[in-house]
Amino acid sequence: MGHRKNRRGGNELPPVEAVAGNGLLNRRALLGRGIVFAGAMGTGAAGSLTGAAAEPLKDEPWSLEMGAVTPPLQVPSKFEKNVVRTLSNPNNEFRNSHARTPHHLLNGTITPNSMHFSINHAGVPDIDPDKHKLVIHGMVRQPLEFSLETLSRYPLVTRMAFVECAGNSAPMFSSAPLQVTAGAIHGLVSNSEWSGVRLSTLLDEAGIDPKAKWLVAEGADAHFLDRSVPVKKAYDDALVAIYQNGERLMPGNGYPMRLLLPGYQGNMNVKFLRRIKAIDQPAMSMFETKTYSQILPGGKTWRFHFLQEVKSFITYPSFGHSLKGPGFYTISGVAYSGAGRIARVMVSADGGKSWGEAALQGPVHDKAFTRFVMPWRWDGQPAVLLSRAWDEAGNVQPLRAEFVAARGQTKQPVTNPLVFPNQHYNSITSWGVDSKGEIKHVYA
Amino acid sequence: MGHRKNRRGGNELPPVEAVAGNGLLNRRALLGRGIVFAGAMGTGAAGSLTGAAAEPLKDEPWSLEMGAVTPPLQVPSKFEKNVVRTLSNPNNEFRNSHARTPHHLLNGTITPNSMHFSINHAGVPDIDPDKHKLVIHGMVRQPLEFSLETLSRYPLVTRMAFVECAGNSAPMFSSAPLQVTAGAIHGLVSNSEWSGVRLSTLLDEAGIDPKAKWLVAEGADAHFLDRSVPVKKAYDDALVAIYQNGERLMPGNGYPMRLLLPGYQGNMNVKFLRRIKAIDQPAMSMFETKTYSQILPGGKTWRFHFLQEVKSFITYPSFGHSLKGPGFYTISGVAYSGAGRIARVMVSADGGKSWGEAALQGPVHDKAFTRFVMPWRWDGQPAVLLSRAWDEAGNVQPLRAEFVAARGQTKQPVTNPLVFPNQHYNSITSWGVDSKGEIKHVYA
Repeated sequence: MGHRKNRRGGNELPPVEAVAGNGLLNRRALLGRGIVFAGAMGTGAAGSLTGAAAEPLKDEPWSLEMGAVTPPLQVPSKFEKNVVRTLSNPNNEFRNSHARTPHHLLNGTITPNSMHFSINHAGVPDIDPDKHKLVIHGMVRQPLEFSLETLSRYPLVTRMAFVECAGNSAPMFSSAPLQVTAGAIHGLVSNSEWSGVRLSTLLDEAGIDPKAKWLVAEGADAHFLDRSVPVKKAYDDALVAIYQNGERLMPGNGYPMRLLLPGYQGNMNVKFLRRIKAIDQPAMSMFETKTYSQILPGGKTWRFHFLQEVKSFITYPSFGHSLKGPGFYTISGVAYSGAGRIARVMVSADGGKSWGEAALQGPVHDKAFTRFVMPWRWDGQPAVLLSRAWDEAGNVQPLRAEFVAARGQTKQPVTNPLVFPNQHYNSITSWGVDSKGEIKHVYA
Repeated sequence: MGHRKNRRGGNELPPVEAVAGNGLLNRRALLGRGIVFAGAMGTGAAGSLTGAAAEPLKDEPWSLEMGAVTPPLQVPSKFEKNVVRTLSNPNNEFRNSHARTPHHLLNGTITPNSMHFSINHAGVPDIDPDKHKLVIHGMVRQPLEFSLETLSRYPLVTRMAFVECAGNSAPMFSSAPLQVTAGAIHGLVSNSEWSGVRLSTLLDEAGIDPKAKWLVAEGADAHFLDRSVPVKKAYDDALVAIYQNGERLMPGNGYPMRLLLPGYQGNMNVKFLRRIKAIDQPAMSMFETKTYSQILPGGKTWRFHFLQEVKSFITYPSFGHSLKGPGFYTISGVAYSGAGRIARVMVSADGGKSWGEAALQGPVHDKAFTRFVMPWRWDGQPAVLLSRAWDEAGNVQPLRAEFVAARGQTKQPVTNPLVFPNQHYNSITSWGVDSKGEIKHVYA
């Protein structure tokens, strides 16, 4: 009966020990057994780290009357009206639109479908699923077409995966830190449980020619976005996804079907997928030779650089939150890598001078969000919070100084976080806490 | 390069082998490597099991015009308007309300928050999270109260868990099978990723007396539902949940905080949680001595029977779907157990005469949905589809005949699926497919 020990009252239990500077505590505290927070904290009510001494319960109005009707589809409380995506083109002008996930207001690892990020080059198409077709052709024995209904009869694979725009986090190319939320900086990545048919199954059905090395995937919206995808990736873990967190895809995420290439840059995960053509060399489409080619400081270019590199960022506390006085807090964030599973996340509260290992919320999925948490006792003095992730392939998230030395930054500070000066940004993000508990974005 | 083999054209690959009567195929087919469906199927276009020979792509209207605005919160396509919960009290009359998850229209394991089931005894309360308090008192050293803000500063645990009403599947107590969807029968269970504070952490903070064996949990809606919970469960895996699939709880699922007792009957997972009192014996509240006591055929009663037993049901194909001619289909469903992880799911296509083992979509979580899939070649003749689950504790889902022998059934067929003649129903569900591909609910 392991629990008896900590039912004898908090003060008999061992206190939480510090593991790094500025109040970072041992992640063992998160096991919740045989550790008490209270003694170590010295704040809040006697015996409690944040709870106050109880007062008699009052009956609020909602306890005294019949509530509202139970609806066919639930929506969030009206008190959560600020928990929405931020939009770059709210009036649907004739250009592309970005909607960013508000990570600073979310928790766990799943992004609710309502708030999955979305980039639309020609608005959100209103596709009739009964009329939509997926054609597989080119270097195949037998060109085939699939409706949503025939596709749905194949075995579906269900897996967690993040999707991230290559332009996510690009505001951090700015030479001075933008004072915006974690969602505004990093909101072009989201994480879902996807269900779909293996692309390899469909290529086998069509009898792909072994000499075919590339696939051109094309979407059905008015932008006809097309990208070249290595056949090797198709036979690794590519899906034609038709469900997102249990329900059909959202219209802004590719309804009724999209390509899912776990770990590859977002636009390659072609939405509204209508065509896959097997060919023997890449198509050299505009999107791969211009839009998503990566120009490096020396003038060289990364082309066909598909992988989204290892990254993490703290979602709480972060810009827009404020700490309500010294005491205990839990630092929390997300980490992910296009190269596989997250192996480790380290957290610093002193701007990178010392580090403690965060606890990872399991199970840790391949190419998907992992939530990390780190207990912290804030003493009321200025602090700088950082997180740094490692993946199972041995990649480590770079410091910002390392990153910009290799990849550059803007000459002048960028003021509009919606402009992308460059792509594939993955350095550490730092949040500065001042003595009032207000939080700024800083470059540590 | 394991994939090369199946890139030489389907007919050179080994066909899928049968593993049980009426066309059940080996789940190895689901690995998607070195197996081709086409040859074994003999349906659809040459070389394909469901795809048709490709025709030239037509540009549909949505490919030729700018689409709609990208909204702050995404909602499903208008073509998915039937994918909603079914309601027992759509006019909010002065009684309880049920909203059931449409499992027959979903896939994967996550229930989208919009469609998580909800039972409300006094409507959906409109709770201001800044005024809501959780009080912990009774046999504790120091009574404490927590706001949503102070609670959120503790370490949050993130985990998958199903929540199931004890009355779920109760329509199957009817002596004749109701002709309704899987959602109408089994829709009072849903599965989410929940994030919350361990209840044990809060009890330790308050300094619970070792002589306290029970907790009374009370909700803040006008029903003031209260249930007794063993302290042992609190120290096992209970949470005070504040996030559901990444965002704050839905109003109908307990906003701003609820008790989460993984594997225990739904109503004990007290929503709108406002009070936990530590006591030395159960409270004997109305909900536990009357509403949720289980009367057995011999007149005895199960009291404090908390666990939701091992269960599975096929979601596709099921009542309301129709098969479009003979050929390949994937049978798919969900399995779960309050006692732990799902160990195995067997599927039959011949009414239980022979069985094949289904593939489980991993990772398999503790006390959470596991999606199972089974490849099937339908020959166009009548078939009866069943699934049967085992959990890691060795429990097996009963046959219906076994179940009703022990637990009873109604004397007359029940016609209203919204009436609960009894609780804790977990036998096998059977779907009869006729030669036209139409599907009925049957008792096999």
